[in-house]
Amino acid sequence: MRVEIVAVGTELLLGQIADTNSQWLGEHLAALGVGSHFHQAVGDNHERIVLAFRTALARSDAVIVCGGLGPTHDDITRDAIAEVMNVPLRRHEEVVEKIRAMFSSRGRTMPESNLRQADVPEGATIIPQTKGTAPGLICPVGHKVVYAVPGVPYEMSDMFQRAIAPDLQARMAERGESSGTIASRVIRTWGMSESGLAEALAAYITDLDEEADADASGGTATIAFLASGIEGIKVRVTVRAADGDLAAAALDRHEAAVRAILTEVAGDVVFGIDDEAIEDAVARALATDGLTLGLAESLTGGLAASRLVNVPGASGWFRGSVVSYASEVKYEVLGVPEGPVVSEEAARAMAEGARRVLDSDVGLSVTGVAGPTEQDGRPVGSVFVGLARPGHETVAVAFTVPGDRDRIRQYATIAALDFLRRSLDASSG
Amino acid sequence: MRVEIVAVGTELLLGQIADTNSQWLGEHLAALGVGSHFHQAVGDNHERIVLAFRTALARSDAVIVCGGLGPTHDDITRDAIAEVMNVPLRRHEEVVEKIRAMFSSRGRTMPESNLRQADVPEGATIIPQTKGTAPGLICPVGHKVVYAVPGVPYEMSDMFQRAIAPDLQARMAERGESSGTIASRVIRTWGMSESGLAEALAAYITDLDEEADADASGGTATIAFLASGIEGIKVRVTVRAADGDLAAAALDRHEAAVRAILTEVAGDVVFGIDDEAIEDAVARALATDGLTLGLAESLTGGLAASRLVNVPGASGWFRGSVVSYASEVKYEVLGVPEGPVVSEEAARAMAEGARRVLDSDVGLSVTGVAGPTEQDGRPVGSVFVGLARPGHETVAVAFTVPGDRDRIRQYATIAALDFLRRSLDASSG
Repeated sequence: MRVEIVAVGTELLLGQIADTNSQWLGEHLAALGVGSHFHQAVGDNHERIVLAFRTALARSDAVIVCGGLGPTHDDITRDAIAEVMNVPLRRHEEVVEKIRAMFSSRGRTMPESNLRQADVPEGATIIPQTKGTAPGLICPVGHKVVYAVPGVPYEMSDMFQRAIAPDLQARMAERGESSGTIASRVIRTWGMSESGLAEALAAYITDLDEEADADASGGTATIAFLASGIEGIKVRVTVRAADGDLAAAALDRHEAAVRAILTEVAGDVVFGIDDEAIEDAVARALATDGLTLGLAESLTGGLAASRLVNVPGASGWFRGSVVSYASEVKYEVLGVPEGPVVSEEAARAMAEGARRVLDSDVGLSVTGVAGPTEQDGRPVGSVFVGLARPGHETVAVAFTVPGDRDRIRQYATIAALDFLRRSLDASSG
Repeated sequence: MRVEIVAVGTELLLGQIADTNSQWLGEHLAALGVGSHFHQAVGDNHERIVLAFRTALARSDAVIVCGGLGPTHDDITRDAIAEVMNVPLRRHEEVVEKIRAMFSSRGRTMPESNLRQADVPEGATIIPQTKGTAPGLICPVGHKVVYAVPGVPYEMSDMFQRAIAPDLQARMAERGESSGTIASRVIRTWGMSESGLAEALAAYITDLDEEADADASGGTATIAFLASGIEGIKVRVTVRAADGDLAAAALDRHEAAVRAILTEVAGDVVFGIDDEAIEDAVARALATDGLTLGLAESLTGGLAASRLVNVPGASGWFRGSVVSYASEVKYEVLGVPEGPVVSEEAARAMAEGARRVLDSDVGLSVTGVAGPTEQDGRPVGSVFVGLARPGHETVAVAFTVPGDRDRIRQYATIAALDFLRRSLDASSG
């Protein structure tokens, strides 16, 4: 089963936006064991979209089209699919009702043009919309198929996982294709550089390559590294196996080995697996000890708080944050002693101030220099994190992080949250 | 002159890396006035690369191939081009010497496999390498042409500007094509839906299309819409003109017309142009009036503050934010009366509390329901924004926004900042 991805939108050809959808789909198709030999991008032009579809259908078994399903005159994917299927478009009354209901639940009048989104090529199946107004489409073309999804990334990924992936798997089963499976696991770390991680794991990676050479099926596991700003540095292990159970067992084995090597070299650097972000690790550590958290943020300007509130159930343990951007707010609200505000002393006072003002068990603070110029004699990239908690002396640690203003804030946020996680884990473990 | 971009590399199909080269080339081709109707990506497989080239040459005048020029066994772009040209590869002695010299100047021995990079299809011209070891290639195929450049971004961009852009311009001149230029401007809005914007501008867009039909050169201006979460909804105007000055004048004209139409239909919905984000608009409005700002955030959890600190010079007017996630923090720190915290009354009290606690001129607050369940009898997506400022009665407004938790927070943030911007603009204008 070979699937070709066709991204629709003149803005892609003009380089005005990056085609992140094709990358996401490529990655998730691979995880299903579905190959993809070609991707295409095409502009908002009827004849060219039709040509792109015909080209794709001639050389692949299925096509996933992203984009061009919106309500405006330049959204013409539906029309192009109908031409390739050689069928008319029909207005789908259930979809009409659903779009009307979406508008009225928001107290807004629906522009008539939105009804274009209810036009469906005859013979196509709807993928019901749950996040946007446009439904997706499953369109048979002979014994092949065109899947159409909106270009909005979270609508696209939702429809892929809900409808396209199961449909592809059913088609593969029908064709008697043992797809095998490609599976990945991401081991999420903070505290080592990308090259430090690569060096620590070099011998393990060499062994994997030798196993792969010895394996006639061509390749067992691979390891890749990805630096992801506020998400930390990711170590991705990818395995190919006959089925999902074997793949999961192989991933378990590799994860345990990688964890053991990294712990040996650098201590507690692994904070999560796959989608577990640093804020999830913090939430888990707080829940273990039954503690509430308050923040005092200067450098990070609310970024740490805005991450923590993403965790479901945050209201159970997160009190809030005093974003003390102006020095006077540090002095007057948080009780920081007059003087330099980028220092270990200020970080400690901010952490204690957060505990007091927000009435939390734990107080965590971040202060530092985002640039463009130094402050209080500290260079750009200096970060101080303070931590106040019951039964422990209030402490502060210093970090130096690289990058521009935005990256310094991201790194400072993960550094602060990771320091909290490690401190809690150390005292409860 | 239509150029198709073909990106070569299995890692692109697997989604392991993003195809930033095609985006960069699309943008730089547009700036030269060269159209691009299709992009393709293809893996490291001889037959499929040949098929991608033949497909591209059938529907475009020129092809730029990125990647597959390296020294290893999976770098096979040279061989595929030779097959499409129907000529043999010849080892190019000058290139051999240059590669040897590069290695010896770094004190390294050259692996023999590197000499593959000196293999050139008969009849092709070399683009000398200055940054890496692989030269680029200009390969005539009939009256069309294939340009090949390495996939390393800085080698690719260097060769494009040094050799491909001048060659394309010469070919356009030969064909009697006035290359002209393509330029865009983004008009950034908040307060109308994407379909509402499209409807308001429908007549203007129809007029543009008719002008384009009447224009033998094929196309003057186009308008597209893009919903971008916290960045608002973007209206992008793209024009084609003989030179940069004419393009800028045309963009000025279209911007003024679009602004006038939107103002007539929906009031002050345009908050910025191109890279001007909502936080920049807020900063400008505060600076005009010489006011400082303090926030009280519940629903948005620090997201509004973290946007504002991105503005250079924010320390001049931004005092901070009280992220009052727990209700007790609203009552005890901000002085919100005990009772429901998702209401206009709570929003007003939070705004006044922010002014008082943070000692700012203006207090702005956001409270609401991110879900997953309703709160205080208010449905998910309910947002209340409060505004307290000198010389004005404290006010609160209600919004309803769609989406999951993350999008509700994004929309609430831009809705709150936009309400502040409009209120300040209305009283100073």
